[in-house]
Amino acid sequence: MSEQWQTYLAEHQERFLQDYFELLHIPSISADPAYAKDVRAAAEWVGKRLEHAGIEHVKTLETGGHPVIYGDWLHADGLPTVLIYGHFDVQPAEPLELWDSDPFEPVINDGKVYARAASDMKGNLLLPIIASEALLNTDGALPLNIKFLFEGEEEIGSRSLGNFISTHKDLLACDLVVSADSGAGTEEDPSVGTGVRGVFSMQLNVKTADMDMHSGMGGGIAPNAIHELVRILDSMRDEEGRILVDGFYDQVRVLTENEKKQIADFDSFPEGLRESTGFKEFFGEPEYTPMERGVARPTLEINGIWGGYQGAGGKTVIPCDAHAKLTVRLVPDQTPERIQELLEDHIKRHTLRSVDVTVEDAHGTTPYRVPDDNPALKILEKVLSDITGHPVKRQWSGGSVPVTSLFKSELGAESLSLGGSQDDERAHAPNEFYRLSSFKRIQKAYCLFLQELGHFYA
Amino acid sequence: MSEQWQTYLAEHQERFLQDYFELLHIPSISADPAYAKDVRAAAEWVGKRLEHAGIEHVKTLETGGHPVIYGDWLHADGLPTVLIYGHFDVQPAEPLELWDSDPFEPVINDGKVYARAASDMKGNLLLPIIASEALLNTDGALPLNIKFLFEGEEEIGSRSLGNFISTHKDLLACDLVVSADSGAGTEEDPSVGTGVRGVFSMQLNVKTADMDMHSGMGGGIAPNAIHELVRILDSMRDEEGRILVDGFYDQVRVLTENEKKQIADFDSFPEGLRESTGFKEFFGEPEYTPMERGVARPTLEINGIWGGYQGAGGKTVIPCDAHAKLTVRLVPDQTPERIQELLEDHIKRHTLRSVDVTVEDAHGTTPYRVPDDNPALKILEKVLSDITGHPVKRQWSGGSVPVTSLFKSELGAESLSLGGSQDDERAHAPNEFYRLSSFKRIQKAYCLFLQELGHFYA
Repeated sequence: MSEQWQTYLAEHQERFLQDYFELLHIPSISADPAYAKDVRAAAEWVGKRLEHAGIEHVKTLETGGHPVIYGDWLHADGLPTVLIYGHFDVQPAEPLELWDSDPFEPVINDGKVYARAASDMKGNLLLPIIASEALLNTDGALPLNIKFLFEGEEEIGSRSLGNFISTHKDLLACDLVVSADSGAGTEEDPSVGTGVRGVFSMQLNVKTADMDMHSGMGGGIAPNAIHELVRILDSMRDEEGRILVDGFYDQVRVLTENEKKQIADFDSFPEGLRESTGFKEFFGEPEYTPMERGVARPTLEINGIWGGYQGAGGKTVIPCDAHAKLTVRLVPDQTPERIQELLEDHIKRHTLRSVDVTVEDAHGTTPYRVPDDNPALKILEKVLSDITGHPVKRQWSGGSVPVTSLFKSELGAESLSLGGSQDDERAHAPNEFYRLSSFKRIQKAYCLFLQELGHFYA
Repeated sequence: MSEQWQTYLAEHQERFLQDYFELLHIPSISADPAYAKDVRAAAEWVGKRLEHAGIEHVKTLETGGHPVIYGDWLHADGLPTVLIYGHFDVQPAEPLELWDSDPFEPVINDGKVYARAASDMKGNLLLPIIASEALLNTDGALPLNIKFLFEGEEEIGSRSLGNFISTHKDLLACDLVVSADSGAGTEEDPSVGTGVRGVFSMQLNVKTADMDMHSGMGGGIAPNAIHELVRILDSMRDEEGRILVDGFYDQVRVLTENEKKQIADFDSFPEGLRESTGFKEFFGEPEYTPMERGVARPTLEINGIWGGYQGAGGKTVIPCDAHAKLTVRLVPDQTPERIQELLEDHIKRHTLRSVDVTVEDAHGTTPYRVPDDNPALKILEKVLSDITGHPVKRQWSGGSVPVTSLFKSELGAESLSLGGSQDDERAHAPNEFYRLSSFKRIQKAYCLFLQELGHFYA
């Protein structure tokens, strides 16, 4: 098995870093329509980068929302096909005032790159492209067939991708999916992901009147949209974080002792998160450990709330409308469809007066777990162990990769994940960063993993 | 008693309307520091207008906040002194998209002037100035001594005026205060105000961590500032609007049968408010009538709330801070100091975790009621009855004129009110308006009231 790719990677790191910075410069914020052209610019940049790596049939495909980038290399006759998945869209950068540097002007400090999407996931996106380029430029071929699928709506729940996958099953047909939108632990404590939570998102709107009122006139007479919203929201969780929506936990699979053990191996994560973000006390269902709650229990969070006067000073007003955004993290065997029904029932029961309460922009994805005995999972564990010299843990992720469950249901393929992100890198928050050491290490992991996988099936 | 002023008023209405429009053009928003120069410009405009009316000793006086305008005419030897109070600051105009015309470009439609502060209170502010001008230009003198005090912080709780009055007792010494920041019913159904509610305002801040977190990582582990805020807010009122803060009602004076009758005379107000603003159902303590709740019961309202992501689409974030603005309307014998203590105790008791909860910008004013047998009150009733040809009701106001209780405590003077605002004129809301018929009628009322009052004491 050739390892000339090692030399190739070493010789081209500076150029790879320039590529990474170019991509970070593009503010490809999928949530805000004002940035649609930047999302498209990021797509086109990724397409060009794939072609430069030697990937063929690169094309921009429309979805109705933000476009998708596809490319492949299919000359390994008789060998399996791996579909590599990622996304080039990013979270909004707000609140801007909390960034120490411009979120779209990456800077390096102490071996870390600071920028929006540095960790989630523009560094990760480049890893399999760089690995393919290195293998093609040294071996002249890839060790198996590869397809690339990069989307532009992951941060808004991969809205168009379900339909896109259903209508492009032949194009995307594969034996295994590898998501680059992930981490592989640290160098000292490597890990492989074995599943993701699902997510259900919605916006809740309350409208009580046609206009705001003076609180000296309407106080004691008219309903207040913020109070109505606050009451509905407060009814959804108890003081300990248990979710009070009827039937919410009915579909949740009970954890086995083996699963609890796998999860317990990761108990440094909650404490690390606490230290890096500065909250003082763990919060959540006391009958589970913080680690179990963080990866294997469903959660409900208000992500944003607004209504009435928010400017300087005060305004004695009774607001006529108020809004909140919510997300629910789902675990097997919950489904977003069922959770939406239960939440809508709950909201209806807690709407006490003749006020308009509406649910808007509801969408979601199913949770996913890779089977314990999957052979590619074992190969990936061995590769990471060989590279780092440490035993590899199986990691449950608390996050969501919306598309994973779609690959299973639409293409029949299991999903693994291989990326360089670490939990303390402030994904979605100000001063997000990514470690250059991960950038290098996981490039190698991709090269080795593809080689070993080809070897296994050859 | 000369009534040449009637002719004078009739001949100069067009000029008075131009004055009114000039003043409405100035965006004197006291809540927002960005408009401080406009508040000062409005102050100077009012000072010039007083001088033009023949008022003497006009001066701009600094308060540490927005300035105060003072002026007087003190040549009625041996007769009482009336202090006329008003304010030239205005509420913010947001939400701007709900205005049919520019809030600071007044337009007339169907006998109504549409602009921010048209009703609260730039039309009312001109009434006593115009009346003084008319009397001075026709009789050559006023029927008693008059002082004018106009402030620029009424819409932010008259923060500096308490201290200003305490330190200017000689300048402001008077026998009676008349607030122009009010209404006098309609032409068919005139009324005199007999009191105002007090108001206590504050901002509540919750901070749970140093930064926002990804909800896939922190969900189930970290506290969410919005959930903590929502729980505290929801604990303050029950589903019917009763306030659950311990001791909140202890200082509330029980209504007498006579007071209940006075209040019941106004029972068209809640229904009128409901129709003009479009809420569907009355809200509040079911053991009181809507009218009683609207003017004689204390209330607690969230005026604004914000935290987390509020942009387009979604953001899977656990916010680390969240905020709300509250106001409490007070009735005799509640005090803002006691209510602040009770609220802070309540907030402390409902802060369940190690999170930072702070109260900011807390300030307030005491409620006030004019004694039933005040002679000036009876003169004002007779004047309004003579002008309109209808019996005059005694009106309890649900709003607050922060300064009224200060005049009582600092100057020993009772307060009456005389203005042209009506309850349906959307004070503090988009498309605020003022009736030109009130503008003319209450100019006359001021002339007659000052004459009758001078005659009574002569």
